[in-house]
Amino acid sequence: MFESDNITEFMSAFDEKLEGYPEQIEEFISSKQYAVLRDLFLPLEPADIAWLLEECGEEHMPLLYRLLPKELAAEVFVELESDSQEMLINGFSNAELKEVLDELYLDDAVDIIEEMPASVVIRILERAAPEMRKAMNEILQYPEDSAGSIMNMEFLSLKKDMTVADAFKRIRRIGGEMETINTLYVTDPQRKLLGVLSVRELLLAEEEDLIEDLMDTDLIWATTMDDKEEVAQALSRYDFLAMPVVDKENRLVGIITVDDAMDVIEEETTEDFERMAAMLPSDKPYLRTGVLDTWKARIPWLMILMLSATFTGMILSHYEGALAACLVLNAYIPMLSGTGGNSGTQASVAVIRALSLDEVDFSDVLRVLWKELRVSFVCGVCLAVANFAKMLLVDRMLLGNAEVTLPVCAVVCLTILFVVVFAKCVGCSLPILAEKIGLDPAVMASPFISTIVDATSLLIYFRFASMLLGI
Amino acid sequence: MFESDNITEFMSAFDEKLEGYPEQIEEFISSKQYAVLRDLFLPLEPADIAWLLEECGEEHMPLLYRLLPKELAAEVFVELESDSQEMLINGFSNAELKEVLDELYLDDAVDIIEEMPASVVIRILERAAPEMRKAMNEILQYPEDSAGSIMNMEFLSLKKDMTVADAFKRIRRIGGEMETINTLYVTDPQRKLLGVLSVRELLLAEEEDLIEDLMDTDLIWATTMDDKEEVAQALSRYDFLAMPVVDKENRLVGIITVDDAMDVIEEETTEDFERMAAMLPSDKPYLRTGVLDTWKARIPWLMILMLSATFTGMILSHYEGALAACLVLNAYIPMLSGTGGNSGTQASVAVIRALSLDEVDFSDVLRVLWKELRVSFVCGVCLAVANFAKMLLVDRMLLGNAEVTLPVCAVVCLTILFVVVFAKCVGCSLPILAEKIGLDPAVMASPFISTIVDATSLLIYFRFASMLLGI
Repeated sequence: MFESDNITEFMSAFDEKLEGYPEQIEEFISSKQYAVLRDLFLPLEPADIAWLLEECGEEHMPLLYRLLPKELAAEVFVELESDSQEMLINGFSNAELKEVLDELYLDDAVDIIEEMPASVVIRILERAAPEMRKAMNEILQYPEDSAGSIMNMEFLSLKKDMTVADAFKRIRRIGGEMETINTLYVTDPQRKLLGVLSVRELLLAEEEDLIEDLMDTDLIWATTMDDKEEVAQALSRYDFLAMPVVDKENRLVGIITVDDAMDVIEEETTEDFERMAAMLPSDKPYLRTGVLDTWKARIPWLMILMLSATFTGMILSHYEGALAACLVLNAYIPMLSGTGGNSGTQASVAVIRALSLDEVDFSDVLRVLWKELRVSFVCGVCLAVANFAKMLLVDRMLLGNAEVTLPVCAVVCLTILFVVVFAKCVGCSLPILAEKIGLDPAVMASPFISTIVDATSLLIYFRFASMLLGI
Repeated sequence: MFESDNITEFMSAFDEKLEGYPEQIEEFISSKQYAVLRDLFLPLEPADIAWLLEECGEEHMPLLYRLLPKELAAEVFVELESDSQEMLINGFSNAELKEVLDELYLDDAVDIIEEMPASVVIRILERAAPEMRKAMNEILQYPEDSAGSIMNMEFLSLKKDMTVADAFKRIRRIGGEMETINTLYVTDPQRKLLGVLSVRELLLAEEEDLIEDLMDTDLIWATTMDDKEEVAQALSRYDFLAMPVVDKENRLVGIITVDDAMDVIEEETTEDFERMAAMLPSDKPYLRTGVLDTWKARIPWLMILMLSATFTGMILSHYEGALAACLVLNAYIPMLSGTGGNSGTQASVAVIRALSLDEVDFSDVLRVLWKELRVSFVCGVCLAVANFAKMLLVDRMLLGNAEVTLPVCAVVCLTILFVVVFAKCVGCSLPILAEKIGLDPAVMASPFISTIVDATSLLIYFRFASMLLGI
C-alpha cells in the first residue's frame, strides 16, 4: 500500500490478513531458514505472532517461540491460548521459565497461572522473583470475578508535596517498568489515595508547580472485591484509561487498565451470548474448542429443556379428545408457540442487555412491566388482526378449508393476544428476578422462556376453545 | 467511605448509586438554592451529571444545564441523549450555542450533529468556528459505519528530525487542545505517517535524542472507509490506546481513541443482541425508548415469523389424516420443535459471536460444518437415548399410555437425531452465508432458525412415521 520508502515497507493495515503467512512459515521451517523467520516475526504485533504460532501447530511452536527476542517473546506468550502456554512451559528449562517470568507484567503473569494446573503453578511460583511471587500470591487470593483478580499492582504513585520536576524525575527512574504512566496517582504516607493526574497535565504545568495543586481530587475508584464486569463497565462509562483499586483499609493497591477492561467486557459478552443460547460458557475461541468440550457445554440445557417439554406433551395428551373433535386447531399450535416464544425472547433479551449495561435494576421492575404490558398489548392486537385476516383470506377462501370457521378464527386470535402479553411480561420480569436472587439473568432467555410460554399458550388455547367452540 | 480529611470527602466508589440525588435536586430547585446545586454537580463525572439531568426531566434540564461552568457543561452535553441535546440546542441563544461548540472536541461535535434534524444541523454549522465547520463537513461525508465518521482530527503530530526537547515544546504549545497526547504520530511533509511513539518513550529518552530514532515504524493503521466495528475490534486486539486513520492518499487524517472504540463495540453488541432476538436495532437505552418506538422495532419480525409459520401449519393440515390415525404422535411435536430450535440456536449463536470477534470467516465454513456435524451427532444420540428411556419409563409405564409403543418411540427418537443434526448444520452455516452476501449474521439467530427447523422437523417426523408405522 505504502510505496514511498523503506521506512514504511513493514507497515500493514489492520485488516490485511495474515493468511498467507502460515504456509510461508512452514516452508522456512522445512528449509531451516531461521534468520528469515525471525525477521518475518519482528515487525508484527504480539497478538498476530501468537495467532501465527497457534496456526502453525504444536509441533513447531517451541521452535518458533525460541526465535523471538526475549521481550517480544514474553509479549507473545501473554497472547497465546492457555493450553499453548502450558505446553511451552512444560518444555521450558528452569532458566527459560525465569526469563519469561522476569519480562511479564504482574497482572499478565497472574492471568496465565490462573489457567494452569497445580503442578505448573508451583513451578512458576518457584521460579518467579521473590517480589513477584509475593504479589502473585496476594492477587491469587482474590475471587475469580473480582476487580482484585485482574488489577495491576505496578502503577506510578506520587506524593502531594512533590513538584512537577520531582515527578518527572520519578517517572524517568521507574516509569520504564510500569505498564502505563498515562495516569498518575497521588497517595499519602499510609498509601491512601488522594488524587489523580494525567501525564498531559504534568507536561503542561510549570516545573515548580506542586502536585497537590494539579491533582484532581474528585476521584472514582473500585475496591478489590468489586465485580470485575461492573468495574469494566464503569471504566467505559467514564472514558477512563485506568481505574484505581483500593483495599478494605482504603489503601491504593492497584489499577485496572482500559485494555484489561475491554477484555473483561468481551469475555462477559461472549458468556452472555452463550448463556442466552442455552450453552454453558466456555473460555476458548469457537474453532479451538474440541467436539467433546462443545458437546459438554451444550448437552445439559438441551437435555433439561427436552425433558421439560414433557409438560407441554402432557397438556396435548390431556386435550387429545378435544383435538380429535376439532383437528383444525392443531395446525395453529406451532404458530402460537412460535409467536409466543419470539415475543418473550424480544422482551427478555432487551431487559438482559439493559441489566448488563446497568440501565435497569430491580427497583425498575414495575416500570419495565408497565412498558412491556403496553407494548405487548399493541403488538398482540396487530398480530391478532393480521392473523384473523390471513386465516379468513388464505386458509378459508384460498385453500378452501371449511373447518376454519369464524369461531375458530376467534379462538386462535384471542389466544395470540393473550399469549403475546403473557410472554412479554414473563420475558421481561424473569431476568430481573434472576438477577435479584443472584442468578445470571442471561439464562432467562429464549430457550427457557419458550419452554414456559409453550405450555402456557396451550392452556390458554384450549381454555378459549372450550369456551367458544364448546369442546 | 473515606473519612480521613476534606480532600477525600467528594470521592465516591464507582458503584455508589446516585439514586438519592434526583430527589435532592428537585428540592434545591423548588427552594431556588442554585449555588448549592452547582456545588453538588461540580465534583461529579460528566456521565453522572448527564444521567441526573435526564432523570430530573425536560422541564428542569435547561435551568440545571446553565448552572454548570462552561467547560464542564460541554463535557456533560456530549453525554446527553440526542433528544435532550436537541431540546437544549433549540433553547440556546446563538451566543450560548457558539460557546458550547467552541468547547467540544471535533469528533464529539460530529457525533452530536449526526443525530440532529437538518434545521438544527444548519444552525450548528452556521455558529461553528470556520475551521471546525470545514472539518465537520469533511467528517460528515464519510459513511455512517466508517472509521472516518468516528475519528478525531485533533492529534499531535511530530516531524522525524525533531529532538525530544522540540517535541516537548510542541506538546506544551498545542497539547492542551488535543483529546489525547498519550500516543504521538510522526509524519513527513506530505502528512504521510512514518511512525508512532508513546509519551512514555519520550519521557524516558534524553533531551537531545532524535524522534526518528525513538519512533516505532512497525505501524498498524485503518483507512477512513474501513468498517468502524472492525477498527474497534482491532484496537482491542492490539491493546492500543488509539489507532491512526489514513485517507486514500495514505495521509494521516485522524485517530480513533480507545474510549470511542469501546462505545462502538458496546453499540454493535447491543445491536447484535437485538437482531438475534428478532428486533430492529434502536439507539436509545431500554427505559428511554417509548412504547411506540419499541413496538415499531418489534412488530416487523413478529409479523414475518408469524406468517411464515403458515408453512408449518400447512404441513400439519396435510398430515391431518395420519395424525388422526395415531394421535399420540401429536404430543411429541412441541418437544421436537423445541429441541430442534434450541440445537439450532446454540450453533448459530456460537458462530455469530465467532464471526463478530473475527475468529471465523467464510473460508472456515467447511471446518465449522464438520465440527457441528460431529457435535450434533453426539448430542442427537444422547437426546434420542434419553428420550427413548423417558418415553418407555414415564409415558408408557408410569402414565400408562398404551399408545406409546416401541415403533412410536423409534419414530420420535430417530426424528430427534435427524432434527438435531439438521438444526445445528443450518444454524452454523446460515450466519456465515449471510455475512458472505453482506447481510448481518445476527439476523440468522434463534427466531429465524426455529421457524425453518419447525417446518423441517415435521417433514422428517411424518416421513419416519409413514415408514415405521405405515400411516
